[in-house]
Amino acid sequence: MHIKLSCEYIGTNFFGFQKQPKGRTVQGELENAISKYFGSEVKIVGSGRTDSGVHARMQVISFLCPWEEVNLHKMMMAINCFLPEDVSVNSVEIMQKFNARAEAKIKTYVYNCYVSATRSATRDATFHQIYKPLDIVELRKQAAEFIGTHDFTSFCSELAGKNPNRTIYSFDVDQNQDEIKFTVRGASFLKNMVRIMVGTLLGGGDVKEILKKRNRKFAGKTAPAKGLTLYSVEY
Amino acid sequence: MHIKLSCEYIGTNFFGFQKQPKGRTVQGELENAISKYFGSEVKIVGSGRTDSGVHARMQVISFLCPWEEVNLHKMMMAINCFLPEDVSVNSVEIMQKFNARAEAKIKTYVYNCYVSATRSATRDATFHQIYKPLDIVELRKQAAEFIGTHDFTSFCSELAGKNPNRTIYSFDVDQNQDEIKFTVRGASFLKNMVRIMVGTLLGGGDVKEILKKRNRKFAGKTAPAKGLTLYSVEY
Repeated sequence: MHIKLSCEYIGTNFFGFQKQPKGRTVQGELENAISKYFGSEVKIVGSGRTDSGVHARMQVISFLCPWEEVNLHKMMMAINCFLPEDVSVNSVEIMQKFNARAEAKIKTYVYNCYVSATRSATRDATFHQIYKPLDIVELRKQAAEFIGTHDFTSFCSELAGKNPNRTIYSFDVDQNQDEIKFTVRGASFLKNMVRIMVGTLLGGGDVKEILKKRNRKFAGKTAPAKGLTLYSVEY
Repeated sequence: MHIKLSCEYIGTNFFGFQKQPKGRTVQGELENAISKYFGSEVKIVGSGRTDSGVHARMQVISFLCPWEEVNLHKMMMAINCFLPEDVSVNSVEIMQKFNARAEAKIKTYVYNCYVSATRSATRDATFHQIYKPLDIVELRKQAAEFIGTHDFTSFCSELAGKNPNRTIYSFDVDQNQDEIKFTVRGASFLKNMVRIMVGTLLGGGDVKEILKKRNRKFAGKTAPAKGLTLYSVEY
């Protein structure tokens, strides 16, 4: 019996999702809390890693349940009590068999920016500050070039022998007053891919040309981690 | 010559706006930063006080400029450098004569809630958690009862001899997925008034009847400070 668990976190004070020898990680905090509840060591699998500083409105993890029977509501409430303020569990489900990474079908990431000459204290933790207004029509035109299946070598910080082909289902650019929101849906993403795509759009790059180059140096800067939120994972 | 300055802050780690003998305050931090820039002690006037834990997306303050000439852009950038992360200045203006408190015409407050049985790590700093869904139609009906000029004695924690009559221009209730947002516009507010109005709505009170009672004990609980944001001040 497996448990499927949805959680959220503020990435600011984490060294990313994945457990590391040193530094506080989301996986580490979740495994601690879950292990405490069950009274035995539990290892979890996340739908994917998020970089250091990246937030999640919805991250999905799975683990093999150490008990044969479990009161889901009680378990969720107890795990939440064992978690620090910046992580929370929002729902739990029992599955016959479930792997959060292998079975993830669609991931949605949101990248938030605000346009202002001065820092905005109330948004600075989860938004990237842009100093000058951008051409939204042009941003939308360029963002649309990402849609479809492409070789994303130019938009990856470390391919490590992986297949560079990825499929983007949608890439929306929304403007609301001084805020710009990028929403990307895809089957899966390469390392730093969303942040490099957003950084390239912000830098005014020609996406079609850069995709063809298949070389990271032609794309724009990697946009800062704090503006990025894993918004949802679909199965 | 006076300076009109718009700023924002996250109230979480402040003992409110107003300077106090003990504890970190927004006024204290602003006066420190402004005094540092001018090299002499500057006293500021805010459009109004916000309680301990209340945030501001836009707070307006004024002060007498100690210099005869000032480079506004330079001044704003320098003050921002002297401010801690949770306060920022967004705009500055020179006025012949200006008092941020006396001349404020309309204030808009936003109160944010989310409905969930579990805590939401990504929103918990600036939202109030509600455990069970609410009837939005009823909330809107009750909120509309606040509109107009009334004796708000029932919705004030400490009248201290003040005129209890206040005018509310609008009181909107918006729902977006699991979030409920209350937006109140008024000429001015009594102590804790917005939080008591929201707390009464959340508790299912009959606003018309409670207004008539002119007694604090008939209104609902004071909603937690962290859900409240001073959204704008108009002059």
